[in-house]
Amino acid sequence: MTKEELKKIKALNSKKGRKEQRKFAVGGVRLLEEALKHKFLPNMLLYASAGLSARGQKLIMAFKKLKVTLNELSLLKIEAVSDTRSSQGILAVFDTPEQELSKLYKPIYRRLLLCDEITDPGNLGTLARSALAFEFDMLLVSRKSIELYNPKVVRSSAGALFRLPVANVSYEELKDFKIRKKAQLIASKASSNNSMTELTLNSNNPIILAIGSEAAGLSERVLKLSDAVIGIVHSPQAESLNAAVAGSIIMKQIYDRDKNQK
Amino acid sequence: MTKEELKKIKALNSKKGRKEQRKFAVGGVRLLEEALKHKFLPNMLLYASAGLSARGQKLIMAFKKLKVTLNELSLLKIEAVSDTRSSQGILAVFDTPEQELSKLYKPIYRRLLLCDEITDPGNLGTLARSALAFEFDMLLVSRKSIELYNPKVVRSSAGALFRLPVANVSYEELKDFKIRKKAQLIASKASSNNSMTELTLNSNNPIILAIGSEAAGLSERVLKLSDAVIGIVHSPQAESLNAAVAGSIIMKQIYDRDKNQK
Repeated sequence: MTKEELKKIKALNSKKGRKEQRKFAVGGVRLLEEALKHKFLPNMLLYASAGLSARGQKLIMAFKKLKVTLNELSLLKIEAVSDTRSSQGILAVFDTPEQELSKLYKPIYRRLLLCDEITDPGNLGTLARSALAFEFDMLLVSRKSIELYNPKVVRSSAGALFRLPVANVSYEELKDFKIRKKAQLIASKASSNNSMTELTLNSNNPIILAIGSEAAGLSERVLKLSDAVIGIVHSPQAESLNAAVAGSIIMKQIYDRDKNQK
Repeated sequence: MTKEELKKIKALNSKKGRKEQRKFAVGGVRLLEEALKHKFLPNMLLYASAGLSARGQKLIMAFKKLKVTLNELSLLKIEAVSDTRSSQGILAVFDTPEQELSKLYKPIYRRLLLCDEITDPGNLGTLARSALAFEFDMLLVSRKSIELYNPKVVRSSAGALFRLPVANVSYEELKDFKIRKKAQLIASKASSNNSMTELTLNSNNPIILAIGSEAAGLSERVLKLSDAVIGIVHSPQAESLNAAVAGSIIMKQIYDRDKNQK
């Protein structure tokens, strides 16, 4: 690889670089095994034989079979272009997926998670991870949330972002979508004592569960758009729960409820 | 304050410094409001009037009333000794609390959370936060877990560490404690399909819920010590849940179950 090519990959560590190239890069054996499992293929793989575990070697071979472009480099060079020191000798460059709601939504989708102005990368990634685990069909991410393909978000998602369709939505798109699809918007609010388990929903229409940021909660206009406001009953000793924990608990409740109704 | 004194406070950003001085330091208005609420008082407060919000000023006044030693400094100096740039003009130095199980445990405690070899500061702090929210009485932290008073752990706990008794336990202490108190050890395992809701427990004896690390799960010997192994049913699409999310979901299930039994 030329110096120029490596420079372009290194530029993917910045938001600007990712936006300009419409690509993102992540490393690590475990994470890239998930990409393989979900058939989300990189357009290029950099690897260093010296740094690879047996699992890493197997992974490289699997990607090779799938005709992914491979580039062998020194471990030092891979670490130099990675965003962390945890590449484990393997770094993959992906095209940023489609993020247009109108192109991604399918009528079969029943459960959507809206991340509203979530700025913590760990929280956004963890919510995506739980959304996949609890069979949410799609993620909606508001404009003011942290950028989705930030490597920290991708890592925290443990590969869920390789699988789940994720739309980046403006408030207007959300509102329009909700009306057209007759979707029921359920707002999660730390101070609410309404429990998910007591909520009656129209099971013919999709639901959108909205989770806001740790510091500010849901934005006013999303709250106004909601059909129901729910919370998680807990001791008053704790001010609130972590946003990803709260969202995950409610997703689990919805998952259990829908399972019981089948 | 002398240069020497400031140097000692700055040293609290390292594990070594915290261990030597048996102290830890954290900043931020919201976090220190929790310390005040739980009456966990610092032995010293550094503040910069220029950097303080109205809430921050109120907080300083409240600590002053409680006879906490105050030191006014420039914002620059406070930032220089803080571990992050988010001190918001206030930094508190605390004595590290007692961490001996035998000194902390009270017979009234019914629900204990064991964090086994958890090395991610965000996960450990978030588990403590949820433990307080779901009325767990005490935290047990295994020797190989990340150090409890690491500022990242304290921040992620959102103040729960100011309230919950936390014991640092060796495996031998844990085993001995379990036998003497006839405690029921419930092990959480990602691959288990046994649900908490189906578990029958002796409600006369305390329970210990054990959560392991993201990467390795529970240690073998803790698993062997357990009376029941449970997991969280979810889609096979996702490999597993985040450790703090999984622990929080099970704590919420135990909290709900105990509430319904009352």
